[in-house]
Amino acid sequence: MKKFEERTIQSEHHFSGRVISLQVDTVQLPDGQQAKREIVKHPGAVAIIALTDDGKLILVEQYRKALERSLIEIPAGKLEPGEEPIVTARRELEEETGYGCGELTYIQSFATSPGFADEVIHLYVAKQLFKIDQPQAGDEDEFIELLYVTIEEAEELMASQAIYDAKTAFAILWAKMQK
Amino acid sequence: MKKFEERTIQSEHHFSGRVISLQVDTVQLPDGQQAKREIVKHPGAVAIIALTDDGKLILVEQYRKALERSLIEIPAGKLEPGEEPIVTARRELEEETGYGCGELTYIQSFATSPGFADEVIHLYVAKQLFKIDQPQAGDEDEFIELLYVTIEEAEELMASQAIYDAKTAFAILWAKMQK
Repeated sequence: MKKFEERTIQSEHHFSGRVISLQVDTVQLPDGQQAKREIVKHPGAVAIIALTDDGKLILVEQYRKALERSLIEIPAGKLEPGEEPIVTARRELEEETGYGCGELTYIQSFATSPGFADEVIHLYVAKQLFKIDQPQAGDEDEFIELLYVTIEEAEELMASQAIYDAKTAFAILWAKMQK
Repeated sequence: MKKFEERTIQSEHHFSGRVISLQVDTVQLPDGQQAKREIVKHPGAVAIIALTDDGKLILVEQYRKALERSLIEIPAGKLEPGEEPIVTARRELEEETGYGCGELTYIQSFATSPGFADEVIHLYVAKQLFKIDQPQAGDEDEFIELLYVTIEEAEELMASQAIYDAKTAFAILWAKMQK
């Protein structure tokens, strides 16, 4: 998949943070002209469609500073360096919801913002959920509230924009199609 | 939707580019502690599910430097300052595919990467497509190839990861559910 490849002529580093970094690449286009590409580097993430035995989704509400509002989303979290996505998925499910799962199945991966970022989310479905007695704590700067909703309730939350992110929107359609 | 609000104490600007900018906000958490939030600002975008009269999707293949590969996606593009999303949708459909449409209907909006970016995509479905004689040209640094695929072919492209972005993954499920 290298159609219309843009060869890097120069890469200028602008920012390194705790989560993301930013660079501006000068590229050579297929017609020989040059262009600039602003690129955010992200470690990648997982997201988990956590389905209870009675067919409810476990969702998490948290404040998203970038949007200056709280969002209701499927559980998700960043990959640690060198961590296999399925390990991250199990860890984030435990940290964000307090649940373990008997079954954890890979669904698919997708880039979230291919126009300016390399973030890829690996999506899993977790079933046979069970409460963990003393779950691992998540990041200490994360404040999260759990919700248990039916697929129909999730669709209503999406219609009212309380659910408002791409991975959760995809997850709801996916879960609906499994029924 | 202000649950667990994070009040900005300080905002540090790090980068302004042609498309995105980057800032690091110091915030006060609900428990009074402080944390840093790395935030990418983006003007927002539209994406269009372009359906031909015989039920095919019009997709565009282009190189995505952030991922160092080409992707097959639904047509999409950034909002110009002050531009109404439906105007952007009509413009981008013309620029990227050369088609106009008799019917353009808003579906929904979603944030693509709420953990670190404010980008929101507004999704439309375009029907009653017609070829425009002399369509507006797109950005001169965009190289794009059109594809016409059935929903089933789009699902195969997603399974093989030729389609690999969240908005297009959502669009395929959405189009499948309309059938």
